[in-house]
Amino acid sequence: MVDHASTDARPSTSVEDVTCGPIYASRKTYLGVEAPGYDDDNAITPPPFPENNLAGPGVTMQVPARRIELTDGTSFDVYDTSGPYTGYATAADCHDLAKGLPRTREEWPHPRPVPASVSASSVTASSSSHSSPSPAATSSGAPAPASPSLVRTQLAWARAGLITPEMRFIAAREGVDVELVREEVAAGRAVIPANHRHPESEPMIIGKRFMTKINANIGNSAVTSSIAEEVEKMVWATRWGADTIMDLSTGKDIHATREWILRNSPVPVGTVPIYQALEKVNGDPAALTWELYRDTVIEQCEQGVDYMTVHAGVLLRYVPLAAKRVTGIVSRGGSIMAAWCLAHHRESFLYTHFAELCEILARYDVTFSLGDGLRPGSIADANDEAQFAELRTLGELTRIAKAHGVQVMIEGPGHVPMDKIVENVRLEEQWCEEAPFYTLGPLATDIAPGYDHITSAIGAARIAEAGTAMLCYVTPKEHLGLPNRDDVKTGVITYKIAAHSADLAKGHLRAQERDDELSRARFEFRWKDQFALALDPDTAREFHDETLPAEPAKTAHFCSMCGPKFCSMRISQDIRDYAAEHGLETVEAIEAGMAEKSAEFADAGGRVYLPLSGA
Amino acid sequence: MVDHASTDARPSTSVEDVTCGPIYASRKTYLGVEAPGYDDDNAITPPPFPENNLAGPGVTMQVPARRIELTDGTSFDVYDTSGPYTGYATAADCHDLAKGLPRTREEWPHPRPVPASVSASSVTASSSSHSSPSPAATSSGAPAPASPSLVRTQLAWARAGLITPEMRFIAAREGVDVELVREEVAAGRAVIPANHRHPESEPMIIGKRFMTKINANIGNSAVTSSIAEEVEKMVWATRWGADTIMDLSTGKDIHATREWILRNSPVPVGTVPIYQALEKVNGDPAALTWELYRDTVIEQCEQGVDYMTVHAGVLLRYVPLAAKRVTGIVSRGGSIMAAWCLAHHRESFLYTHFAELCEILARYDVTFSLGDGLRPGSIADANDEAQFAELRTLGELTRIAKAHGVQVMIEGPGHVPMDKIVENVRLEEQWCEEAPFYTLGPLATDIAPGYDHITSAIGAARIAEAGTAMLCYVTPKEHLGLPNRDDVKTGVITYKIAAHSADLAKGHLRAQERDDELSRARFEFRWKDQFALALDPDTAREFHDETLPAEPAKTAHFCSMCGPKFCSMRISQDIRDYAAEHGLETVEAIEAGMAEKSAEFADAGGRVYLPLSGA
Repeated sequence: MVDHASTDARPSTSVEDVTCGPIYASRKTYLGVEAPGYDDDNAITPPPFPENNLAGPGVTMQVPARRIELTDGTSFDVYDTSGPYTGYATAADCHDLAKGLPRTREEWPHPRPVPASVSASSVTASSSSHSSPSPAATSSGAPAPASPSLVRTQLAWARAGLITPEMRFIAAREGVDVELVREEVAAGRAVIPANHRHPESEPMIIGKRFMTKINANIGNSAVTSSIAEEVEKMVWATRWGADTIMDLSTGKDIHATREWILRNSPVPVGTVPIYQALEKVNGDPAALTWELYRDTVIEQCEQGVDYMTVHAGVLLRYVPLAAKRVTGIVSRGGSIMAAWCLAHHRESFLYTHFAELCEILARYDVTFSLGDGLRPGSIADANDEAQFAELRTLGELTRIAKAHGVQVMIEGPGHVPMDKIVENVRLEEQWCEEAPFYTLGPLATDIAPGYDHITSAIGAARIAEAGTAMLCYVTPKEHLGLPNRDDVKTGVITYKIAAHSADLAKGHLRAQERDDELSRARFEFRWKDQFALALDPDTAREFHDETLPAEPAKTAHFCSMCGPKFCSMRISQDIRDYAAEHGLETVEAIEAGMAEKSAEFADAGGRVYLPLSGA
Repeated sequence: MVDHASTDARPSTSVEDVTCGPIYASRKTYLGVEAPGYDDDNAITPPPFPENNLAGPGVTMQVPARRIELTDGTSFDVYDTSGPYTGYATAADCHDLAKGLPRTREEWPHPRPVPASVSASSVTASSSSHSSPSPAATSSGAPAPASPSLVRTQLAWARAGLITPEMRFIAAREGVDVELVREEVAAGRAVIPANHRHPESEPMIIGKRFMTKINANIGNSAVTSSIAEEVEKMVWATRWGADTIMDLSTGKDIHATREWILRNSPVPVGTVPIYQALEKVNGDPAALTWELYRDTVIEQCEQGVDYMTVHAGVLLRYVPLAAKRVTGIVSRGGSIMAAWCLAHHRESFLYTHFAELCEILARYDVTFSLGDGLRPGSIADANDEAQFAELRTLGELTRIAKAHGVQVMIEGPGHVPMDKIVENVRLEEQWCEEAPFYTLGPLATDIAPGYDHITSAIGAARIAEAGTAMLCYVTPKEHLGLPNRDDVKTGVITYKIAAHSADLAKGHLRAQERDDELSRARFEFRWKDQFALALDPDTAREFHDETLPAEPAKTAHFCSMCGPKFCSMRISQDIRDYAAEHGLETVEAIEAGMAEKSAEFADAGGRVYLPLSGA
C-alpha cells in the first residue's frame, strides 16, 4: 500500500530497524468496545440518545492499553500510544512495514453526511456533496456558506447529535462518558484528528476536558537525516507516549517519507503543507501561489494527513510589527508567508482563500491547526502586539472553519515568562471560541540552550494547567541542532511529565491513580514496580543499578539515599503499624490515648527504628 | 587551618582534584565596595542613615561577578557563586586547599552587639553578653527573654537600623539598594546565613525580594563516596551556580569532611545536625539525648556551619497523623525525631529545648532552617493534616527564634501537585511571618523517577514564582541512587532554570537582561555568544557541534533547524530592515503607508527572503 513512485532512493527502513517488543514489565492489552451501525436516516434530527444508530451493522473495536504487571500480583493499565509495535516480542513478529498497518477504521460504521453548518437545518440527501460555492470573502463577516453542504466530519456529526465509532473508542480509551466526548467536539472545545484516508490510526481526542496530549516533531532536514531514521523516530516517539506526530520534513523525499509514516502510524499525523509547497518552488517564498499550495494540501489530504498547520493569520499589515521585536519572526511558516506578503504587497493567499481551504479539509475531515506565525521567539517578545493581532485573526478564521464543519485547534507560543502564560490561554479561549489550544512549550526563559526541554516543560505544565489541550514537545537540542534518538525520547518523556502534572492539577479523573500506585510501590520498597510504573522504566532501573546493582538490592528494604543502617521509609512503616495497633488516627485520639499507651509501648521494646543489621 | 585530628584516613583531595579555570568566554571580576567602620556607640538608637558608623576603620570589599566577554566587543556581568576557583587558569595557581580560603570577613568592621529582642531598648553595654536566662517553656506564648541579651546577628543589627558590611556586599552583588537589604532582614523576610566562624564565605541573601537562590546537597553515604569526592562536589556545584551547599554526610568522617568543605567554601554551608548526632549513637534514634544533640550543634557552630536544619516541629501528637499517609514520613530528620518521640513517649527535645538552641545559634549568627519533618513524600500526601500541623508549629518557633535575634527560614515540600503549590506559600507566609521559604522542589508528579530534576523543576519554578526564596535542588538520581558528578551539574543547572524563570515572572530588576542579551545573540547568529550567555555554555556548544561541527558554522547566518537554504531568522532581519527603511512601525502607519510603498519595494527586487546559496 506504500507509494514508492515519487522517491528516487529506495528507503532502507525494514521491519528489523524498528523498535518492537514490550515496555518493561508490560504487555499490550485491548478492550473490546461495540460500535453500532447507522441506518439511512441519521442526519437531520438527533434521535433519542444513546439508542440511535443501532439499525446498521456494528463492529467490535479494539481499544488499546498497556497493562503493567506488578509484583504483588495486581496490574495497572495505562493509556497507550505505541500501536502494535509493543505488542510483539520481536520485530520479526510485527507487521510488514511495506504493507502498512491494518486499515481498521475503514471497517467501522460511520454516519451518513450531515450539514456542515450548525445553523443549517433539514437536509435529507444521503450522499456527500461538495459543490457548494465558496463563502464570501473571509473579511466580510458572513462566514456561513450560502447553501448548506453535507460533510462527514466529527464536528458536524457531533453537532447533529451523532456518536461516531471514533467517539466511542475515545470514551473507552480516556475512561469517560461518550456523551462528554460528543459534547466537547460539538462545542468545538475538542477535536478528533482523523482523516478518512488515515484508517490505520487509533482515534484520540485533543481537548481540555481530556488527558493533556503531546506531539513530537520528526522530519528530515537539508543537513542530515534519512527516511529510515524518520520512520523509526515515529515508532520510537509513540513508544514513549507521543499522542501525535508532526512530519516536518523539508528534503527531497517529503512525499515518500510521509507515506511511510502515515501507513505505519497508529497516531494522527500533522504537517505544515507550506514546507512542501516551498520545496516545489525551490525555496523561494515569492514564487508560491495559491494554486500550488492548494494542490499540495490536496495531495496531503489524499495521503491521509490528519491535521495541518496553516499560518493564515499572518496578515500583510501585521508583518512590520515584527520589526520592532528582539527576535522578529521565528516561525518558519510565518516567515514564509511574511516574505510572500511583502514580496507581492498583497494579502496572504492563505487568508483570502481560507474558505476554499475549509472546503478541502472538510472533505477528508482534516483538522486545522491554525498556526501562530507571529509567535514570540524570546521572552522579550512575549504577548506583544504582533502575537495578539494574529490571535484575533485566528479567532475569525476559527468561526469560518467551524461553519464549514471543519475541526480547529489553535497553535500558541513559544517563549513566554511564567507570569504571562495564563493570559495566553484566556485570550485564546475568548477570541477563538475555546478551540483546543496547542502550544510549543512555552519556554519560561531563554538562558538555557541545551536544556530547553526543561525550560519549556516549566511553561508547558503551566499552560496546560490553565487549559492548553496539547503540548508540542521540545528536545534538548532545540535552538542548537537536530535531535537524535535519545533527544526524542528525552523530549517525549519530559512532555509526558508536563502533561501529567497538568492533569493532576486539573483533577483529571484517573491521573492521580498512577502516582498513588507508584508511591505505594516506593513506600513498600517494591523497586521493580517503581520502575514498571515510571514513565521511563529503563532509565529508572539503570539509575538504581548504578548505585546498587546487585539483584538483592531490588528487594532490599532500604535505598541508596540513606543506606541500610537507617531508613526513614522503614520507620514510617513502623509508625503506621503502631498507630493502627493503637487506634491513633486523629490529633484528638492521639492526645487522649498517647499517655496511657506509653507504658505498653515501652514494654514492647520501643523498637520503632530499624534494627541495625550490621551491614 | 584544617583540622585533621578527627579523621583516621587522611583525605586524598588535593588542589589538582578540584575543578578550576574560567567558565567559557568568561573571566572573574570584582567590584570594590567600601565598608565603613563603626564607633563604640552604635547599638541603641539608629543614627541618621547612611551617614552612621563611619567613625571606625573601614575596608574595601571585593564583590565577585563573572564577566562574559561577547564577540561584539561588549561584556555582560552575571552573579557568580564560584569563589576563586574560576579565577585562575589552572588548579596549581589557585589557593592551597589545606590552608583554606582567605578569612576575609574577619577583617571587615562589624557593629557592636545589640539587643536580641526587637522589643528591648536602651542597651548600652558594648561587650557581648550571653548570660541571659533561657526563655520560659516555648509553649508558654512568652517567647521574649526576661532580660534583653546582646547579640551580633544580622537580624538584630538590621532591626537596630545598622547596616553591616555583609549587607553592603549583598546590595552590590544583587544590584539593589542597601536599605532594601536591611529592611528585609529586619522584617525577617530575608536571611544572611553567615556564621562568624565561616569568614571565608562571600555573603549572600535569601529572601523573596532578591534573586531566587538554589541549594545543592552533597555528602558521603554509608554505601559509596569519599571525602575527596565531596570537596570537589562543592566546588563543582558552586561553579555552576549553587548559592549554598548542604553537607548531609552520614559516614564516619563527618567532622573532617565538613571542615574541608567549610574552609574551602565560598558559599554558606548548611547541615542537619541530627545526622551527626545519630552517628554518635550508632544509628539508634532512641539513644539520642538533648545534651548529645546540643554538643553536636555547638561543635558545628564552632566549625562555621552557616545554617542548620532543625526538625523541631515534629511533635509527639503529630506523629501518628503520618500513619494514614501513602508514604508516611520521608524526611530523615523527621523520622528520627518521630522515632525518638514514640520510643520515649515524650515531646521532642528539639521543641522543649528550643529556646536554649536559639541562644546557641545567636552566639554565632547561625540561621535556623526549620525543617519540615512531616513534609509529604507523594502527591497523595500533599497539603495534609500532618504537614500543616507542623507548619503551624514552625510559625510558633519562628517567633521564638526571632525574639532571640536568630535568623530563620522555613523548609517546605517535597511532593505537591501544581494546584496545591500556591497554598503552601500562602500558609507559610501567614503562619511564619513571611520568613524565607526554602523548598525541596516540589515534585509536581511522582511518575517519573529518573527525571525528578524535571518533575521538581516544574514545581520549583511555580513555588518560587509564588514567593519561595530558595530552592533545594533535586538530581536525576532522586529516589533511585546517589548523584554522580554529572547528576550534580544537571541538578544545579535545572534549578538555576527554575529560579531564573521565577525571577523573570516576578519582574526581578535584572533578570530579563540576560534573556534579552542571549536572544539578541541568537537573532544575530552570534553562536559563540549564545553559548557564553547560556547557563551551561559547554553543553550548548557540544550540542551545536554535533550537528554542525565545523568552525565556520559558528558564524553561519543559519542554523541546523532549517539549514542554509531557508532561514526564518534571516527573513526576520530582512523584515526589520524593510520596516525601518519605510517607517512602518504601527498597524496604522503600515495600513496608510503600505500601498504606496509597494511599487518601490517591487522595484528594489522584492528580495526579503534569503538568496539561495546553492549549498
